[in-house]
Amino acid sequence: MKELVARIRQDGKNLGNGILKVDSFINHQVDPELMDLCGQELARRFANVDATKVLTAEISGIAPALLTALPLGLPVVYARKTKPVTMPDQVYLTLAPSHTKGRMVELIISPEHLDEGDRVLIIDDFLASGATIMGLVRLAQTAGARIVGIGTLIEKTFEGGRDLLEQLGVPVESLAVITSMDEDQITFADS
Amino acid sequence: MKELVARIRQDGKNLGNGILKVDSFINHQVDPELMDLCGQELARRFANVDATKVLTAEISGIAPALLTALPLGLPVVYARKTKPVTMPDQVYLTLAPSHTKGRMVELIISPEHLDEGDRVLIIDDFLASGATIMGLVRLAQTAGARIVGIGTLIEKTFEGGRDLLEQLGVPVESLAVITSMDEDQITFADS
Repeated sequence: MKELVARIRQDGKNLGNGILKVDSFINHQVDPELMDLCGQELARRFANVDATKVLTAEISGIAPALLTALPLGLPVVYARKTKPVTMPDQVYLTLAPSHTKGRMVELIISPEHLDEGDRVLIIDDFLASGATIMGLVRLAQTAGARIVGIGTLIEKTFEGGRDLLEQLGVPVESLAVITSMDEDQITFADS
Repeated sequence: MKELVARIRQDGKNLGNGILKVDSFINHQVDPELMDLCGQELARRFANVDATKVLTAEISGIAPALLTALPLGLPVVYARKTKPVTMPDQVYLTLAPSHTKGRMVELIISPEHLDEGDRVLIIDDFLASGATIMGLVRLAQTAGARIVGIGTLIEKTFEGGRDLLEQLGVPVESLAVITSMDEDQITFADS
């Protein structure tokens, strides 16, 4: 999506080791108008998958998931990383590596909000190694739900996540596709 | 706001000890249409405070803050509870008690996204003791920014947060005001 690519070119920073800093418009400060455009575009791309629910992981998945779910008229569920006191004792739980924390974190969903009738559209900010998204896939599958699509804002193809997700046989869409971050550059697929 | 009050009456659960379970539409599963209505109403109430930025805390503040900031045309900053690798070494940091975790947690903002020219509208899901919101106030004040308003979805008047916030001399608005949760009831101010 040209608006997102342009914004990454303008404000994104390559910190080295494949780390892309986008915290001025995506994951610390959020530009709601850009996020709304992204959500509308993801909603358009997944308009025909008959999803019943949008699934994401706290924290930085919440904004894109919410603004994708709004035009689709669907509820959002965000997997928690800490079990709140309001959640029942029996939950769906899996582990996924956290880039931020440098260790495994829990992803937790209450069985109250995901069940075998659900057709799940997974939305997240990044598709990198695919590990967080695969955690969400496992949670949905444990609930007996069906994955019908996976959408992200930014994909880093050099981390291989797409290969991992393609085994699922569902559409995988990313709005900005980065093929390389070598030598302080940010190279996009369409450039 | 009658739509939010009606939804709490329908789907909110009083778990005792002042704990209100709203995780089917606010803070685990989110109803984007209801959240959009709430955001529009908060935006309307704060249309005249000349805010330059909406400030909230991860995690459950993100959805209401985003949908308040969108109609206002303002950026959102959400305070992080864990410092990501993309954040500079020097940050604004304070401590606030977490109901979910039962201990103090850090609230962290990068100086890149909050400065002395900012007029800050704080938005969060709950106004209870006011402790998290006062943490956000301290962060904004440390940055030299000015608080111009505080808005929340749900206020529990019996936890006294409003008294704490009124010393700031700014408008404090809540869309659903709960005055008592005694005896398994949920009593609203307007009922």
